[in-house]
Formats: sequence, structure tokens, C-alpha cells
Amino acid sequence: MHILVTNDDGVNAPGLLALAQAFRSLGAVTVLAPDRNWSASGHVKTMHRPLRVWETQLSDGTPALTTDGAPSDCVAIAILGMVEQPIDLVISGINPNANVGHDVTYSGTVTAAMEAAISGLPGFAYSIDSPSGHQGTTDYSTAAEVAVSVAGQVLSKPMPEKFILNVNIPYGNLEDIRGIAVTRQGLRIYRDALVEREDPRMRKYYWIGGDTPTGIAEPGTDFWALANHYVSVTPLTLDLTDSLMLPTIEGWNLKL
Amino acid sequence: MHILVTNDDGVNAPGLLALAQAFRSLGAVTVLAPDRNWSASGHVKTMHRPLRVWETQLSDGTPALTTDGAPSDCVAIAILGMVEQPIDLVISGINPNANVGHDVTYSGTVTAAMEAAISGLPGFAYSIDSPSGHQGTTDYSTAAEVAVSVAGQVLSKPMPEKFILNVNIPYGNLEDIRGIAVTRQGLRIYRDALVEREDPRMRKYYWIGGDTPTGIAEPGTDFWALANHYVSVTPLTLDLTDSLMLPTIEGWNLKL
Repeated sequence: MHILVTNDDGVNAPGLLALAQAFRSLGAVTVLAPDRNWSASGHVKTMHRPLRVWETQLSDGTPALTTDGAPSDCVAIAILGMVEQPIDLVISGINPNANVGHDVTYSGTVTAAMEAAISGLPGFAYSIDSPSGHQGTTDYSTAAEVAVSVAGQVLSKPMPEKFILNVNIPYGNLEDIRGIAVTRQGLRIYRDALVEREDPRMRKYYWIGGDTPTGIAEPGTDFWALANHYVSVTPLTLDLTDSLMLPTIEGWNLKL
Repeated sequence: MHILVTNDDGVNAPGLLALAQAFRSLGAVTVLAPDRNWSASGHVKTMHRPLRVWETQLSDGTPALTTDGAPSDCVAIAILGMVEQPIDLVISGINPNANVGHDVTYSGTVTAAMEAAISGLPGFAYSIDSPSGHQGTTDYSTAAEVAVSVAGQVLSKPMPEKFILNVNIPYGNLEDIRGIAVTRQGLRIYRDALVEREDPRMRKYYWIGGDTPTGIAEPGTDFWALANHYVSVTPLTLDLTDSLMLPTIEGWNLKL
């Protein structure tokens, strides 16, 4: 099996290294990841400028490719032929923060998995729920172990085409994790605020600031799973249609 | 009613001007749009750098604000207080090309509407299906008229919270449009190819190129509506959970 590994934190991120190392137990690993951090970058297809691709290596000496494109660009150009074919699985991460609730619409980690699915390949996005205000080095070892275990089990099942899994893993030791919960996307509560500053030339500029977002830990959701020390596994779709609203809007009988 | 107008093509785009002018018949219009083109930029939340905001004006003299942020940033900072409150409706466009099928996951036009919904406001994204290879000036007048008509009718209904409408309008004259079809997101067929070039210093670089994507015009989809000269109105959701897959994955009985 040939596994493409990417992320949105950049090719030098420790979460990528942990993922690349761990997935060698499942197959041949190729790394193609952005040369910088693309967090909260969304689903990008870079067509207005060309992309550069360089050879590099991870800190353990693993050969890797890096590009000035976005995470989804990495997946697109890899599948279009930049790396040896065929690719059987695309994995993305490990993101140092959970991608839960509406985060998934912004997440570069998740959009890499979405880009895989658009090309008909399974795409798995991995994130850990590291505690807010967490200091020091983040430990990805438990998450990497869980990531491989989940992938190994899922790959043995009859997967549908365009299969996207968003996997969020509690931070900590394996023995503190209670199990795996299949979840739906929960409701994020953002606490953003507009923060105004002035530069040395007295011109205003603005940060999107505010408090750390929270979420509603309704049973069955990704938030609930993490709050209860379960690994959260959410299947995602590329179809954004609000199917439940279709009959309502048809009933509105809109005219030109 | 106070209407925020943005887009992903930049504040000087003619599609934005057409939208801003047309929606004056529904309420007070405030324009806050990016200072450059953000096409295929995805759902962005810019938090790693501050945003600048300038006063500018549209080519008809309408005062406007512009920023170096993304379309979704425009909506976020407007709602967070950059423009006069309250805002009742966010509209985005008019995009010069259709946003159908998986395009919606990349579309800056659509993510602006998504950002509105995250803040609890209705967000309507408008695009026209201008013919591939279309030359010369694009005419937005029909689309702007349809956009206002759709918005006016929808706003008179009991809308749910977090309501996102993706509206695609056939290109041409009003009398050639057959009506309004409530649709689901169709299946895009991308025909991308990796195009290799060499710079004057003999170093390779890459374009995501290839042919114009097509789509499967299955009845009831956005593609079908446009192919049959209907305005396509698709309700979108922020919940990307693949609900149909949940029972299947639960049946897999995944273990740590």
C-alpha cells in the first residue's frame, strides 16, 4: 500500500513526522507537505500562480517533498503525478489542535482529506485535542499509534468511494482513552472579537482575536467524544446540500 | 434592512458593483470586500497576521471598505463590529463563473455566505454561469435582478438560523430563463492536469492546469438546473457529517 502524508502545519511539524513514522507499519510512505503553516486556510486550489516543489527531508532523515502550495494543492499535485503512482490512501496531520464542529470548514488538515476524496481516494484527517494553553513539546506518540490502528481497521472494511474520515484524538496516554466513538460534527461556539491596534505611524490595523472557541458537547458529537476521553471518528461528505431544507424551500414556490 | 455585500473577486469587480447597486432596492447596503482576487481560496480565518482596512469607492462612487483579508474575513470583521450594526443579511458575488458541485468547497464566494451563517445571519452566494471561453465584458444585469428577486422572496419566509443559499444564475437575458429550481449539489468532474514548465534558470515549476471541469447533469442537481436554463437555488449546511455512513461505521466496531 502507498500512503501519501501531508499536513497544514508545514513539512517540519512534529505531528507530520509522527504520522509518517507510524504509517510505515502499514505501507510505503511518501511525504509531500507545504513549506509553511497553512492553518485555517480552507480548501484551496492554486491556479493563479505556479507551484514550486523541492526535495527535503524530515528531521529523522526521511526523504520528503515540499511545496509553496496549500495542503489541498499537495494532495492534488501528488495525485496528478508529482509522486509515484498509484496512491492508495491520503493522510493528513497530526494537527496540534482538535478540528471539531465548524472548524472542519476552515481546516487545512481536513481539506487535504477532502481533496483526496474528490480524486476518489480515501482521505483521513488526524488531530489531537491538546489542552488549551498547553506548554512545551506536544507528544504525538499516542495519537500516531491510534491513527495507525484506526486506519488499519478501516482499510479492511468495504469503504465507499470518496471516503473522508475526520479523526480527533484525546491528548494524553493510551490507557486514559476509553475507546473509539463514531460521531457527528458538533456545534462550535466561536468567541471571536475584533481587536484594534495602531502601528508606529498611527494607522489602525485589526486582529481577529477573542477567546478560545468552545463547543456544545451534545451526546454523539465530536465535542462529546473528546470531553469523555473517546477518540472521535466522523465521516464527512463533500455534499454540502442541506437536504432537510429542500422540501421547505420547494414549498416557497420561488418565482423569477 | 442592512445588507453587507462582499465577494471573492475583489472590491473592483463588476459583479460586486452590480450586486451593490441592485440590493439598494431592498435596504441599506454596506460594501466590505477584499482588495484583490481570492478565487478558489476556501474558508479562511486570518489569525496569523493583522488585517488592514481602507476606505475606497466603487466605480459609481458608492463608498466601500476594502481589506487585505479573505472574503470570509470580510464577513467576520464586519459582523464583529467593523461596520455599523446590526447586519441583517450577507450577500456575496456576483461570481463570474458558476459555483456548482464540489466547487462550493473551494469557493470564496460561498465561504463568505458560510461565515455569515456561522454568526447566525443568512448568507446568500450568487454566481453566473458565464459560458466557457466567454470573451469581452460580462453582463451582470440579469443576474443582479434575479438575485434581488430571490432574496426578496426568501426574506419574506420564516428562514432557519444559519441559512446559506447558493444561487447560480444562467447567463443571458431574463426571458431565456425558465424559472427557479431548488436543487442539490451535483457531482463535479474535474479534468485537472499537472503542467510542468522550466524557468529561465532551468528550474522546474508546476501549474495545476488541464481542461475546464464538467459536471453530471442529473435531474435535481445544480448542474441540471443550469443546463436547462433554470436559476439553481441550493440550500447549504455547515454540517459536513456524512450521516448516511454513520450506521455503517458504527457497525465496524472500531477498537483502540
